[in-house]
Amino acid sequence: MKRRVLKIDKLPTVRRLPAYLAILRELFLKGEQFVSSSYLAERLEIEPILVRKDLELTRINGTPRIGYCVGDLIKGVEDFLGLGETLDAFLVGVGQFGTSILYNQELTNLGLKIVAAFDKEPLKAKALVHELPVFDMARLAELSKRIHVGLAILCVPPEDAQEVTDIIVASGIKGIWNFTSTNLVVPEDVIAQKEDLASGLAVLSVKLNRIQPDCNV
Amino acid sequence: MKRRVLKIDKLPTVRRLPAYLAILRELFLKGEQFVSSSYLAERLEIEPILVRKDLELTRINGTPRIGYCVGDLIKGVEDFLGLGETLDAFLVGVGQFGTSILYNQELTNLGLKIVAAFDKEPLKAKALVHELPVFDMARLAELSKRIHVGLAILCVPPEDAQEVTDIIVASGIKGIWNFTSTNLVVPEDVIAQKEDLASGLAVLSVKLNRIQPDCNV
Repeated sequence: MKRRVLKIDKLPTVRRLPAYLAILRELFLKGEQFVSSSYLAERLEIEPILVRKDLELTRINGTPRIGYCVGDLIKGVEDFLGLGETLDAFLVGVGQFGTSILYNQELTNLGLKIVAAFDKEPLKAKALVHELPVFDMARLAELSKRIHVGLAILCVPPEDAQEVTDIIVASGIKGIWNFTSTNLVVPEDVIAQKEDLASGLAVLSVKLNRIQPDCNV
Repeated sequence: MKRRVLKIDKLPTVRRLPAYLAILRELFLKGEQFVSSSYLAERLEIEPILVRKDLELTRINGTPRIGYCVGDLIKGVEDFLGLGETLDAFLVGVGQFGTSILYNQELTNLGLKIVAAFDKEPLKAKALVHELPVFDMARLAELSKRIHVGLAILCVPPEDAQEVTDIIVASGIKGIWNFTSTNLVVPEDVIAQKEDLASGLAVLSVKLNRIQPDCNV
């Protein structure tokens, strides 16, 4: 029951905004000037009424029977997501998964900029990445004083996750994107968000009917 | 508005079950016999009433002032998630990210078993993995006839995603776990679930207050 139970009731909308943006940019490249909420609803597989509610966040209004101006909407979503600014981050743990984050163009498009990486075995990690400095984990606190970042992307083995988190927190970084399976303990003023592939697989399993039909899901 | 808008209103619960399981297994290893819903609520950062509702799915009942039997609850969650069976899968696209899926112990613990991998450049991909056959993408349809799998894990570049999906669908595989940024078009009888790091970053950005406070999120 910590601070992390954020009262942000628009989070499902925020979660969908990158998908809107991808579709809108695609339409823009095709030369489309207007888009209807029903078209967006079909592409996103949600109800049109939900599209209209989602897009209220951008403060861009649609015109009945014409739709939304694609260019305005792109600008509205970009502004809302703060895409003008970059979000500087440390990558902590440069294994296969950490490296894949580095080359994820979609995240780069959203403003994520990884400025340095850290690993327990920096020489081994260095072999996986190009043109990014990989430092020994022991130097994280020191370098965090010199390079200010808002986010640490945690991709270490689960058994090291809390220990490394304590180092990150002590270094003054206030955001942690947690790709480990560990539930982290962090102080009130630090945001730790867990991305959880196991949850995705559990949902997929249910959808694929691995579950007995009498369970009423 | 396709079939994929599944009316499974328990999905948020299902999504949380792997986290319950991780905590319960940890308690079990520590020798704890009972656990309260308030303890689970605190660990998962949700309300105790929600924990009790979640656990109804397992059909395991708690005892007032004693709590739930840890062993029974583990069994209940495992049964619900179908952890007795393995879910055989093809890994399609063996880059950095695809490889990281292969070594994800959490997914293995949930029953995922990758039986073969495919890549446009199998020799290059082969260098990244150990003890798993990596085939040329062109052989997917043929091998799918011989090795029956329920799931394809799609980790190809976004521009190849739809084309490869069409091959997967034609080969008769009914489940696709989509780790690309592409919104896939699939027939009614195929389940395609997208995992979306961009959404996670958008939510994190909002939490980190990159957004103007007057936006009322």
